[in-house]
Amino acid sequence: MTLDRSTLRWNGWGFARHDDNVAGVDKLWSFLAEALGSGPLPHTPAKPLAECKLASSSLAFGDLAPFQQAGCDVGLTPEDRAFHTRGDSYRDLLDLRAGRLDPTPDAIVYPKDAAACQRAVEIAGKAGLAVVPFGGGTSVVGGVTPLKGAHRGVIVIDTTRLDRLIAVDRASLRATAEAGIYGPFLEQKLNAEGVTLGHYPQSFEFSTLGGWIAARGAGQQSNRYGKAEDWLVSARLATPTGPWSTEGFPASSAGPRFTDLVAGSEGTLGLITEATFAVHERPTARDYRAYLFRSFEAGREAVREIVQAEIPVASLRLSDEDETHFFGALSRLTSPPKAMHKVEDAYLKLRGFGGAKCALIAGAEGDTALVAYARARIAEIARRHGALGVGAAPANRWFKGRFHGPYLRDPLMDRGLGVDTLETAASWADIPGLYRAVRAALLETMAKVAGKGLCLAHISHSYHDGASLYFTYLWRRPTGGLEAEIAQWHAIKTAASDAIAAHGGTISHHHGAGTDHARWMAAEKGPKSMGILRALKAELDPNGIMNPGKLGL
Amino acid sequence: MTLDRSTLRWNGWGFARHDDNVAGVDKLWSFLAEALGSGPLPHTPAKPLAECKLASSSLAFGDLAPFQQAGCDVGLTPEDRAFHTRGDSYRDLLDLRAGRLDPTPDAIVYPKDAAACQRAVEIAGKAGLAVVPFGGGTSVVGGVTPLKGAHRGVIVIDTTRLDRLIAVDRASLRATAEAGIYGPFLEQKLNAEGVTLGHYPQSFEFSTLGGWIAARGAGQQSNRYGKAEDWLVSARLATPTGPWSTEGFPASSAGPRFTDLVAGSEGTLGLITEATFAVHERPTARDYRAYLFRSFEAGREAVREIVQAEIPVASLRLSDEDETHFFGALSRLTSPPKAMHKVEDAYLKLRGFGGAKCALIAGAEGDTALVAYARARIAEIARRHGALGVGAAPANRWFKGRFHGPYLRDPLMDRGLGVDTLETAASWADIPGLYRAVRAALLETMAKVAGKGLCLAHISHSYHDGASLYFTYLWRRPTGGLEAEIAQWHAIKTAASDAIAAHGGTISHHHGAGTDHARWMAAEKGPKSMGILRALKAELDPNGIMNPGKLGL
Repeated sequence: MTLDRSTLRWNGWGFARHDDNVAGVDKLWSFLAEALGSGPLPHTPAKPLAECKLASSSLAFGDLAPFQQAGCDVGLTPEDRAFHTRGDSYRDLLDLRAGRLDPTPDAIVYPKDAAACQRAVEIAGKAGLAVVPFGGGTSVVGGVTPLKGAHRGVIVIDTTRLDRLIAVDRASLRATAEAGIYGPFLEQKLNAEGVTLGHYPQSFEFSTLGGWIAARGAGQQSNRYGKAEDWLVSARLATPTGPWSTEGFPASSAGPRFTDLVAGSEGTLGLITEATFAVHERPTARDYRAYLFRSFEAGREAVREIVQAEIPVASLRLSDEDETHFFGALSRLTSPPKAMHKVEDAYLKLRGFGGAKCALIAGAEGDTALVAYARARIAEIARRHGALGVGAAPANRWFKGRFHGPYLRDPLMDRGLGVDTLETAASWADIPGLYRAVRAALLETMAKVAGKGLCLAHISHSYHDGASLYFTYLWRRPTGGLEAEIAQWHAIKTAASDAIAAHGGTISHHHGAGTDHARWMAAEKGPKSMGILRALKAELDPNGIMNPGKLGL
Repeated sequence: MTLDRSTLRWNGWGFARHDDNVAGVDKLWSFLAEALGSGPLPHTPAKPLAECKLASSSLAFGDLAPFQQAGCDVGLTPEDRAFHTRGDSYRDLLDLRAGRLDPTPDAIVYPKDAAACQRAVEIAGKAGLAVVPFGGGTSVVGGVTPLKGAHRGVIVIDTTRLDRLIAVDRASLRATAEAGIYGPFLEQKLNAEGVTLGHYPQSFEFSTLGGWIAARGAGQQSNRYGKAEDWLVSARLATPTGPWSTEGFPASSAGPRFTDLVAGSEGTLGLITEATFAVHERPTARDYRAYLFRSFEAGREAVREIVQAEIPVASLRLSDEDETHFFGALSRLTSPPKAMHKVEDAYLKLRGFGGAKCALIAGAEGDTALVAYARARIAEIARRHGALGVGAAPANRWFKGRFHGPYLRDPLMDRGLGVDTLETAASWADIPGLYRAVRAALLETMAKVAGKGLCLAHISHSYHDGASLYFTYLWRRPTGGLEAEIAQWHAIKTAASDAIAAHGGTISHHHGAGTDHARWMAAEKGPKSMGILRALKAELDPNGIMNPGKLGL
């Protein structure tokens, strides 16, 4: 079971036939134009594939035949190569929408199983080709850009034929699957066995198990189910020096745990072919509800208290004032008007929440007793921090639309706007300063390079010792063509990333490093850890064929 | 603040003045002799230090002066060298009690701070000396045996002068301390700030923060506070190629997390000088209580259900039938007779627990609401698995004596007995077969090499996907001298370790690999991971001076 790639956008998000539901809402465009201090927004459609130029493959038939003999299909059509030319970052879309497909892979190789993956990596090594591992291709940090490094060509190994669920161990609550399986198919098969992985990133519908691990990703219920590095039990990889299987114990003190090196390796050490991971019994109870706080600070302190009191939550998502306001307004603009809105507004005003406010969505999943316990404790702590409970309806609306956010980007880009996201994590002590600094860097730089910008932020992952911060920001694109667009994006991204590095944040909490964050890796990791990373790579991939240019390697 | 080493046993456990409380209990010795099918147990005292021969140090004054100039004290007395000659394993004690102190360190170096550690490692490297990092020296796997490898001599770097608590971050619940601080002093200083690390291994009183991390240790409340690899946030190390500081984010996706390589490195990559770690608010509530199960299997299923239902327990300790029986009998033999025993026995018989039974001690710590929730859910699950609640008293007795176990070993060894422990971990699916196989290997091998043996086991650490198994075993030592004693131990240890490797267990859950487990490392990790370990070591310690012969390196 896999996705039919012809149903997906090659230069945008998700299904081609998805109704974006905003393109025709005139009020939205005037609202955004006003918010950005702009005149009417222009129409800036993307270039269709038929009008784009693809460099011809540098590979000859003799280069490709060995892959086919090794149990791999080979894709060479323009559609196939275009789909695998970039990931799904804003920077990627600038290229794709303008028709700049260079660099582009010389071929797409589809192994049918793990053994074929190993052979494909070895064939590429012998032929002097770089290899870009590719699952769903939803990287938003340039993780799948087909850089060939010092090699004579570059192939993409697409893992999506490796889509089997291999085993479920109900006693140990572990499952093993091939790495190329897409999120929905994996969950469907796990659910049929009574269990769930519970890993629901925003890309869930279009990303794969192996991609989640390679990018050290996080799902929206990571408080309960963990990040990829938490639920990963063991992995198998195809590397240029042979297959690598890692340990799989619940815990061990027999030396360092090498499984830990797989999560976040982004294809630079090898291609993940199979993984064993922790699963949960399917929850029999679930409770998501929303609270309004008078400030981001009050909400943040409540979130901190909830996680530090070890309350078994699944998800805590706290929007800052601007994000709460923006999505509230957006929802009213894009939905039919409701008489209830006025009643709601009056009620909130009466309770002292008429002006700035911050929404928290708090969710618990598990058995009935656990959910009841979590719900009661969350409510008590939220109240103590001055929050108003606003019930399950807003939380369920968020839950229902939780994968739809990225679909907004394409219509915004069609109307001359830039929109990007970035995220970080830091200790609770560093979070307030980091939030202020990144927000200021984004707003100031957008003001400089785009006249004005909007900056929305939320906390969506929280830990005993800290939390993540996720920023979404919008601005007007320049009119000077692709190079000007890239320079503008680069200025904003650099300012925000420098602010992250200067204020105790990691350059990425769950998107990964890819090419976009490569230049911040050395400062974050330090020279000795970068030396270790290079030594690891030299051991597994001595000729440097695996995903060149990622992770700062 | 540090321990006065002159108050500690150099060839046994803990404080020299500790009252072992069993040596004079004649009934104990006849009970053990009978259990082992033996005649009266002989008296086999250890050799006093004054009668032992220590090889003279191979180092000259010119070798030692640079360490002193670099801010280190140097110890050369027989007492100092004898104390640092071995760890605290049964195998170590055989050597020490027989007066075999070879190999012995050429000198003990005491750096005063992290900078002096770095200089000391570099001086040793230039002088061609191997370095054994030493905290409390309680390794039970040969982790501090002063092997010099291919080098001309070997020094021990004792970290216990690095004993400062550097910082406590109350918002992020993190603390930073120097690595040589002993458990009790660390907790005392943390408690004064309102927090706790909560890491209480059986060695707690005599082991150090750095040792816990290096050996990837676990405390008795690891369900709540985590193993060393869980609570470790970041570390600083002195390595032969310069200082190494690792990342310290709550979570990150910027490549693999190199902090993960520090836990379990056992001094082979560098000397841990400082660590930042997660702490908790001091618990305001605590509830430990005991349950009796009709079988180890029933208890095991209850433990599995408790952890898989994500109930916030601190500790779950389930003894098998023989361990429950043995410690019950031991407690009655070594305490004054109580009229209550007969009443207790009658009550248990009445409730159907007259014969074989297994004791579970279940503890929760935290705030009042958490402890109440955990206690109620544990009780419900235990009952559902047929358990009888026997109240808080037995659990509190265990809690009070939780560090005393190792003191039993010295008097047993004084009476011709051998006693050792080993431990492993595996998935829940593998636990039943692993338990049977290791127990059978121990009992069969003890029967072969000692006539008969006793084997006790418990689960003391449990996870979503599996658990640990801890075995304690007793037998009669042979009379043929040290070589015969070593051969006997080696036969038993090898049989059990082979059974672990063959039945899905790790060679160690929390004791570490050291020298004793070196030969099982390659099979457990696999050739590729061992290659990575060697590549890591070559990067940080190219001349291989750091703790040679450990981890299978």
